[in-house]
Amino acid sequence: MADPETPYLAVDLNTLERNVSSVAENAANKGMAIRPHAKTHKIPEIARMQLAHGAIGITLATVSEAEIFADAGIDDIFIAYPVWPSAARIARIRALAERITLRIGVDSIEGAQALGAVVPSGSVEILVEVDSGHHRSGVQPHDAGSVAVASARAGLRVGGVFTFPGHSYAPGNGAQAAIDEAGAIETATESLSREGIAAAIRSGGSTPSFHASHGDTLTEARPGVYVFNDAQQLELGSCEFTDVALTVAATVVSRHGRDVVVDAGSKALGADRAAWATGYGRLLDEPEARIHALSEHHATIRMPDGSVIPELGSTLRLIPNHVCNTVNLADHVFVLRDGQIVDVWTVAARGANT
Amino acid sequence: MADPETPYLAVDLNTLERNVSSVAENAANKGMAIRPHAKTHKIPEIARMQLAHGAIGITLATVSEAEIFADAGIDDIFIAYPVWPSAARIARIRALAERITLRIGVDSIEGAQALGAVVPSGSVEILVEVDSGHHRSGVQPHDAGSVAVASARAGLRVGGVFTFPGHSYAPGNGAQAAIDEAGAIETATESLSREGIAAAIRSGGSTPSFHASHGDTLTEARPGVYVFNDAQQLELGSCEFTDVALTVAATVVSRHGRDVVVDAGSKALGADRAAWATGYGRLLDEPEARIHALSEHHATIRMPDGSVIPELGSTLRLIPNHVCNTVNLADHVFVLRDGQIVDVWTVAARGANT
Repeated sequence: MADPETPYLAVDLNTLERNVSSVAENAANKGMAIRPHAKTHKIPEIARMQLAHGAIGITLATVSEAEIFADAGIDDIFIAYPVWPSAARIARIRALAERITLRIGVDSIEGAQALGAVVPSGSVEILVEVDSGHHRSGVQPHDAGSVAVASARAGLRVGGVFTFPGHSYAPGNGAQAAIDEAGAIETATESLSREGIAAAIRSGGSTPSFHASHGDTLTEARPGVYVFNDAQQLELGSCEFTDVALTVAATVVSRHGRDVVVDAGSKALGADRAAWATGYGRLLDEPEARIHALSEHHATIRMPDGSVIPELGSTLRLIPNHVCNTVNLADHVFVLRDGQIVDVWTVAARGANT
Repeated sequence: MADPETPYLAVDLNTLERNVSSVAENAANKGMAIRPHAKTHKIPEIARMQLAHGAIGITLATVSEAEIFADAGIDDIFIAYPVWPSAARIARIRALAERITLRIGVDSIEGAQALGAVVPSGSVEILVEVDSGHHRSGVQPHDAGSVAVASARAGLRVGGVFTFPGHSYAPGNGAQAAIDEAGAIETATESLSREGIAAAIRSGGSTPSFHASHGDTLTEARPGVYVFNDAQQLELGSCEFTDVALTVAATVVSRHGRDVVVDAGSKALGADRAAWATGYGRLLDEPEARIHALSEHHATIRMPDGSVIPELGSTLRLIPNHVCNTVNLADHVFVLRDGQIVDVWTVAARGANT
């Protein structure tokens, strides 16, 4: 196959397979199941690879993502999100619950009552979301029991509890986030237990905290980014350059001094830049280079002293900061084995936000 | 029409039409033509509205965007980008040049030679890009003549010069960026003149500098964001809340204290946050609220003291920081007249990066 036009997304299959199998093995060693978050890749081929390596199902964030993966034959899905059952969404939730094993997150009594009121009694299982320190959605762990009781009264089955320890996304925070995660899950489990409800499922996980996650507390983990990794994971210390499975191929279109400008900007890479990030992304083949400025179609890369400045027209391999948002901008990814394109995968759930 | 499921993009037609006509009028008063940058909206219906209000053509950033707008009947397009004529792109550039009036940016002698070598002599017109202070692509203004000479020798027609005064994107910088823009364009024009080449087209423009742009120096301006405006333009002082024509409708899914969490995150809004921005976006109906945290499907909004905390399940209208990246995430926008949905427009050039 001829080289695609830049910018394009390139997935290294050897690295992807290694990432999928090593996390599966690590989880097995901890005595935990994994239910990977497929919002990172949005690609059924990769979900099937994860299931083949022992994942018990997948995690998603939206009803429309779940519909797309259900259409692709994935039959066990957790929507780890406090989905609001607005009028247009009710029929879709019911239909999903009929054809796959579906779990949904709930983080309020009102949310439990609203959901329970519109689905047949016993048809949907919920997990109560608790806040373990990220302070996004989720109730306080000691309040989990009251949400579980309200859910049960509303006719929902209560499967257990979950949390996203997103405060793992800061340098050095991974292990502490895993401790907080385990503590929140334990407190939430006790809170349910006091109400006579068993938290059979105790779900946690993020890629930066995964290595430190407590397999004695969690029954399952939901890492997502690990399949590809990205510049954030590099800078958090969650992976090495050799673990990066997705890059954005881009052409050098302009040069001045030690800066080169390539044709992949925020519309190809995404605009993510955490406060602690060293730039807008990295180069796979020049670890000290930084993307120091980003427009919609321009990434300006400062090449380190002593490095060779790439020629105009040459192709560079960029590592985006946050690969989930990168993939969501593309209609497909090119799949490479040993440097040769061997397949093209459709990003089936791109833009599936509803 | 029933309310679409959130998150969705809502365009207020009255505001859009007012923005389009007021910038057209302002340009006419300055004695400048406008060639709006359609990368903001990527929607042929809006391009046709701009042309109906006197725009002389449109500006785009990529060959694939130009192909899509050409297919929609737009026949005068400037690709304001130093397009590299890689192997797969040559036939596409030639085909475009045959069916529409096409101009392309060039910012290096090598780029001019590479392009000239692959298109029929005289078939493509170029504008030389110069740097007016944004330090992205573009040669120094006094070097514009040498690029123009190389272009002419390579068989390209030289139409003139252009710059993007992108350093207007900082609070208080708009007027100075317009001064820098005019100075760079004058120097570049003189540089071409010394080589016996006339810069008939002298093109500048960005939304934050447009109000201050020098109509005596520029022959045309290329503002883009003004059609919709966004939180960046609000915080730069380029527009008022009443000028914001595009919002992202989102549902409240979680609450704690004065924070509400809605179901539009970086996969709906985009992740842009300039260093000077006060957050990840604003609310149309609560000017003092700020989106202070953003994940892929969660925006966490701090409601100001004394304001009413929105109910779970209610819909809020979010103003994204950078509307160009927001639109590029959506397949279509819902068009409202006086609060009623009257049309749905396809984002025809979404993802057209090549």
